[in-house]
Amino acid sequence: MSIKPNTQKGTRDFSSKVLIKRTYLKKILQNAFESFAFEPLETPSFERLSVLTGKYGDEGDRLIFKILNSGEKLKKVDLDSLKRNDLKKFSFSLSEKALRYDLTVPLARYVSRNQNDLTFPYRRYQIQNVWRADRPQHGRFQEFCQCDADIVGEKSLLQEIEMISLLDRVFNDINLKGVNVKINHRKIIEGIVNLTQNKNSLIDYTVSMDKLDKIGIKGVEEELKSKGFSQLSIDKIKGIVSLEGSPEKILDKLEKNLNNSSEGLDGINELRYIISKLNNFKFKSINIKIDLTLARGLNYYTGTIVEVMGPEKVKMGSIGGGGRYDDLTNSFGLKNVSGMGISFGFDRLYLVLEELDLFPLNINLSTELLFLNLGDESLDIALKKLNKLRSKGIICEIYPRKVKINKQLNYANKKKIPFVVIIGEQEIKNKKVTLKNMTTGKQDQILLSQLEKSIPH
Amino acid sequence: MSIKPNTQKGTRDFSSKVLIKRTYLKKILQNAFESFAFEPLETPSFERLSVLTGKYGDEGDRLIFKILNSGEKLKKVDLDSLKRNDLKKFSFSLSEKALRYDLTVPLARYVSRNQNDLTFPYRRYQIQNVWRADRPQHGRFQEFCQCDADIVGEKSLLQEIEMISLLDRVFNDINLKGVNVKINHRKIIEGIVNLTQNKNSLIDYTVSMDKLDKIGIKGVEEELKSKGFSQLSIDKIKGIVSLEGSPEKILDKLEKNLNNSSEGLDGINELRYIISKLNNFKFKSINIKIDLTLARGLNYYTGTIVEVMGPEKVKMGSIGGGGRYDDLTNSFGLKNVSGMGISFGFDRLYLVLEELDLFPLNINLSTELLFLNLGDESLDIALKKLNKLRSKGIICEIYPRKVKINKQLNYANKKKIPFVVIIGEQEIKNKKVTLKNMTTGKQDQILLSQLEKSIPH
Repeated sequence: MSIKPNTQKGTRDFSSKVLIKRTYLKKILQNAFESFAFEPLETPSFERLSVLTGKYGDEGDRLIFKILNSGEKLKKVDLDSLKRNDLKKFSFSLSEKALRYDLTVPLARYVSRNQNDLTFPYRRYQIQNVWRADRPQHGRFQEFCQCDADIVGEKSLLQEIEMISLLDRVFNDINLKGVNVKINHRKIIEGIVNLTQNKNSLIDYTVSMDKLDKIGIKGVEEELKSKGFSQLSIDKIKGIVSLEGSPEKILDKLEKNLNNSSEGLDGINELRYIISKLNNFKFKSINIKIDLTLARGLNYYTGTIVEVMGPEKVKMGSIGGGGRYDDLTNSFGLKNVSGMGISFGFDRLYLVLEELDLFPLNINLSTELLFLNLGDESLDIALKKLNKLRSKGIICEIYPRKVKINKQLNYANKKKIPFVVIIGEQEIKNKKVTLKNMTTGKQDQILLSQLEKSIPH
Repeated sequence: MSIKPNTQKGTRDFSSKVLIKRTYLKKILQNAFESFAFEPLETPSFERLSVLTGKYGDEGDRLIFKILNSGEKLKKVDLDSLKRNDLKKFSFSLSEKALRYDLTVPLARYVSRNQNDLTFPYRRYQIQNVWRADRPQHGRFQEFCQCDADIVGEKSLLQEIEMISLLDRVFNDINLKGVNVKINHRKIIEGIVNLTQNKNSLIDYTVSMDKLDKIGIKGVEEELKSKGFSQLSIDKIKGIVSLEGSPEKILDKLEKNLNNSSEGLDGINELRYIISKLNNFKFKSINIKIDLTLARGLNYYTGTIVEVMGPEKVKMGSIGGGGRYDDLTNSFGLKNVSGMGISFGFDRLYLVLEELDLFPLNINLSTELLFLNLGDESLDIALKKLNKLRSKGIICEIYPRKVKINKQLNYANKKKIPFVVIIGEQEIKNKKVTLKNMTTGKQDQILLSQLEKSIPH
């Protein structure tokens, strides 16, 4: 019985047509990262299980792909935990390593491991796949590409400024206009929560607020109420997070509301400094907006929080994000390392470019020239020329066998090869070759040495 | 307790210094593949277990990394097989998917799946990581990179000729001379075995002959004896496989020995044709040698067999190989598809280039220009200039905070940044900037607008 040649759900084959575009996008990100003095880093696809678990919360831990132990190690399986229905412990007894879940924990491990050799601030970018055992659905895959840039070991707000100007550079390079960059600050969120009687409800607050897009302000209100927030608190919050205007205006108004909160004022001053310095750049592709409802996995971020939204007409939602963190390397024994990171949602960016038809046309990678196969002498002449053309970057091939000319021309048409070289008896006698333009049908007799110059490249 | 920040054995972190060289090598392979009209392909990191198992032999199956099922599926574990010590079956009850073991089986799956959409011959290249649960040792990793080019769906020997000329192109581009390309043919091996009374011992013969490098001809002789080959047979074999001379000479002599074997003569004629056509190319980096002892996983190859040996002074052994196969897609229900493939050992090639010091010096990726941080006004001027320089591909950064100048210059020295820009009070007054060459110590006052032109790039 033959095996079905399908891919595993949630994974994809990338054909040439798609890969060419992915490579184009990757190259733009890479060039931008590198000119911003970020160094490349690649980490292994799998890490020791202990490196990964406990970093992403319970839900995250469940979504980590574990690698099954092999050979005799399998005998160490903990059957008691299976009986107790403790599947977590059971799976840990069967596995010692797991697939990369994001690029941030591997970065933390790398920095901790190489702390004595790195020059800080360490600026690194990383473009690699990550794997999540998430239920596959449209636009959500079990294997997908992440593109991260981080500056580690420096608290200066210049890093925030750099990162936001990097966003403009990238979107400019891919010709994507109207990107909204939403900014908030963890300390501002703390200041807002501290205004209520629910000082210890920071997580409750942000979990609800994170759902704003999905359940609307009414829904958030109901959730907060069910979590014990008073109507008075809720009204206060609503009044604050709905502040509108330019970033400077919002921060001015916010200051009046949070002037009793030292955290809140810290956050405001930081954002004010960042915004003022950003005025040095004339951004062409991004609009900076203060969004006081923005939370984004608060447990992780300790300062500025950034979310990047695709142009409104695309309805893709978030295409990137990042923020300031302070405790990245703590679990690996390296304390007091602050960093700022930004991540591009590669697969979503790809979809946005596809939808807006922003991939250039000239990134094609198809054969430019086909030598017809017309027998031994013809073949020898073609072989001698072939690799010289290829060394000049001209993509060419010889039809693999001597069959009827029509069949060979059909192959050229099917592969959309624009030019065909015919070296028949007549041509050999005249010491020329025939160059056939497959689009116009026009045929020219030229010298073999003029081939390169006779086709556009 | 903090977690040790180590990588899993057999895997590697790639720092910028190494990645720059790996990217250089990858790019050369990619350019060569593409100009030879190979299209890129990428397949998922994991496949359904049924796609991978049974393709690589028992030993290979053991080395496949399986991914542990998650959640409720774990309850389907087959505990009886564990009791019976049938670890293979036990592991299959815990896993449905596995990591890519090579690039060939995924290619076969892809071709079978897309047989109606592909234009044959389908020329594809693939540069991706593969994973093997092999015991890690020097130069052998659990995660490593493979680079394959295959032409699928065409029996014409032109494919063999193309592939061998591709080898020369690649080695030429990386400036690696003295590469030996050893060639043999499965039908010639059959012809040799058929000369003995051990006609059904093809596998016995090749398993022993494959060990020639390790155990020497004496060792091979003893193994063959223990497998039932007569001394007469062994002497015959030895006489044949030690034939020497140019490829043409060896084939002529071989023909006399195998003139009763139709398989043998088929193989000889094919190699003769290939060798004669290769004469059209003036190879600069490779030497073609007929090696009648070459076997290379015979179960797989059905025609030409190729092995690529690094220059003798490096002692790296095989740095690539390939051959003709006929049954690639059979297990996926697609019959009669012949192909020819070649694979480059990326990590070994890297080591060879490293040992011979063949990586170019100009592929560096470090910061070219550092703006010192001398306070607010200075910073504003730097920020305005910074991204303009970056857009021109100049790698530059600003020191993250205003600290003593010496500390900032130390950072430049540590990161080997060749130029530093100083915008102090004096400079602001004069509407100039100071450009300091960190190698010579020389300082020049220049206009900010002349910065690009004042540094080599």
